[in-house]
Amino acid sequence: MHKRMGKQTVCLEHPPYILSYASVAGKKEGDGPLRNGFDYISQDSYFGEQSWEKAESHMLHRCFTIACDKAGLAPSSLHYILAGDLLNQCVSSSFAMKDSDAPYLGLYGACSTMAESLSLSAMLVDGGFAEAACAITGSHFCSAERQYRFPLEYGGQRPPGAQWTVTGAGAVILGARGSGLRITHVTTGKIVDAGITDANSMGSAMAPAAYATLRAHFDDTGRTPDDYDVIYTGDLGALGHDILENLFRTDGLTLRHYQDCGVLIYDRSVQDVNAGGSGCGCCAAVLCGHILPTMASGSWKRILFSATGALLSATSAQQGSSIPGICHALVIEKED
Amino acid sequence: MHKRMGKQTVCLEHPPYILSYASVAGKKEGDGPLRNGFDYISQDSYFGEQSWEKAESHMLHRCFTIACDKAGLAPSSLHYILAGDLLNQCVSSSFAMKDSDAPYLGLYGACSTMAESLSLSAMLVDGGFAEAACAITGSHFCSAERQYRFPLEYGGQRPPGAQWTVTGAGAVILGARGSGLRITHVTTGKIVDAGITDANSMGSAMAPAAYATLRAHFDDTGRTPDDYDVIYTGDLGALGHDILENLFRTDGLTLRHYQDCGVLIYDRSVQDVNAGGSGCGCCAAVLCGHILPTMASGSWKRILFSATGALLSATSAQQGSSIPGICHALVIEKED
Repeated sequence: MHKRMGKQTVCLEHPPYILSYASVAGKKEGDGPLRNGFDYISQDSYFGEQSWEKAESHMLHRCFTIACDKAGLAPSSLHYILAGDLLNQCVSSSFAMKDSDAPYLGLYGACSTMAESLSLSAMLVDGGFAEAACAITGSHFCSAERQYRFPLEYGGQRPPGAQWTVTGAGAVILGARGSGLRITHVTTGKIVDAGITDANSMGSAMAPAAYATLRAHFDDTGRTPDDYDVIYTGDLGALGHDILENLFRTDGLTLRHYQDCGVLIYDRSVQDVNAGGSGCGCCAAVLCGHILPTMASGSWKRILFSATGALLSATSAQQGSSIPGICHALVIEKED
Repeated sequence: MHKRMGKQTVCLEHPPYILSYASVAGKKEGDGPLRNGFDYISQDSYFGEQSWEKAESHMLHRCFTIACDKAGLAPSSLHYILAGDLLNQCVSSSFAMKDSDAPYLGLYGACSTMAESLSLSAMLVDGGFAEAACAITGSHFCSAERQYRFPLEYGGQRPPGAQWTVTGAGAVILGARGSGLRITHVTTGKIVDAGITDANSMGSAMAPAAYATLRAHFDDTGRTPDDYDVIYTGDLGALGHDILENLFRTDGLTLRHYQDCGVLIYDRSVQDVNAGGSGCGCCAAVLCGHILPTMASGSWKRILFSATGALLSATSAQQGSSIPGICHALVIEKED
């Protein structure tokens, strides 16, 4: 088991290359601070479709097409597509990919899906099972809001700790041969249940899972937070961001270069998003519209990308169940 | 890419061993022809819980525990658990596994989940990423019925082509070292949309996906149906079973030893299940309660196990969308 480092981490023997990445965002995200990085911004929440669920699917399909175009690959030449989303039965992913003519593996990792799909894609390429694989996910504010909370027309009030589901998508194509950015380590999370039952406090529910996975990553690899130019979490928001910093402070560790994608994607001082962004699409769009482009053109050598998911449903919340969280993490390095 | 055979199939270099398997079934399934194979049969549709969703979770947890016990492995010693189910946001799996203390990868493959989770587990073990991994899924008639169709109290009439969601679960633990049964090939399906929109005709919606994946398997490997002692599909039911036979007949191929788990699990002459069983739990329970025990103790040397999923949601059906299908397949061989 030479690839294993401790219980949760694998070190990839032939780290797969990032062949291309693409991001699509909605209007609100396109008005935010990361606007210049997205490949496509839709001014129409319906993306030209008849429903928000179909809009979400349209958005994913567009994102996938851009990523394939950038990589110069026909969709049918991919050996695997790994995709998932927040909609019941992950229909936006399956409808988006149904004409891709490529082997499809559906995932459900809630908002951790970008890290989960990248982790599995990276292992499938590293293990020699695939020459190229696509990891993709996204979310849509309007379809998520009406599925998890209230009809939009109701105009429900949002408590200060609530987050705003990002309308956005991100896709990454990994390949066995390439240059530039590579995935070198994968740390797969365990489910962590901190007993939170407030479905408006996702940051609190997910921060303990982020702590557990990052802690496992440092323990497994022998690295410290300072070994990374930046450590990213997916969508803890402002509240979860601070909880995670505090959890590490208790360990005597300072996360010096730590950022949360849910904090980065909006300007909270002028955009009405309370604690920040959330949703599968949050860290997917930030990874592909901000982190990877910045790495590719800049001086960062190594980042740790993690994404957390809250494993609840409207039914489990209504039945009074707690909100278990999960977090998956991976290391992206730039070749000299 | 020496592990690749054609576009959709990989031949595993170090075929993982099946270390253990377990099955749990509900009362109706326990009254059926496969009753003697299940490890545990519950006479209570609630499995002692307060809701059917929690019952489904309880059932999965029990199945997982039995599989770990049989393998002599502590749950926390597993390198990965790969699980999924039919409930919105796959909550029965995540709640069932939340205290397992093992890295968790959530999947959504609808009723193809047993084949998807086994495929990914097999590749993770074969690729050296895991020493042991668990593939698990299940479904519950009552939670599925009220989520996808009507409240049970409504007593809706079921058309002849409809199928009965199996209350059952199956778990398989794969390991790098062992003896007996091994997974040798994995064929991953593409999404196939035959344009079916009748949510009561799942067999018709999924049979074209089964055909496409089995066809790809034969093309990729150069094998024929006669190279297998038995070919299984997951839950096409009586209608889908016949459609699949007809599709192959058009190719000039006879599926001589072909069985569908949805046909096997009930006695359709006395149990009121119309076209047969369906649901993630159908082929999971049949695999672990019938196929694997029969292989282990009998003369079969090689079987092809495939499972189909219908990638719809109640929302996509209500919006008039078609029902895309998917099918994943894998080869299980018995060592001499």
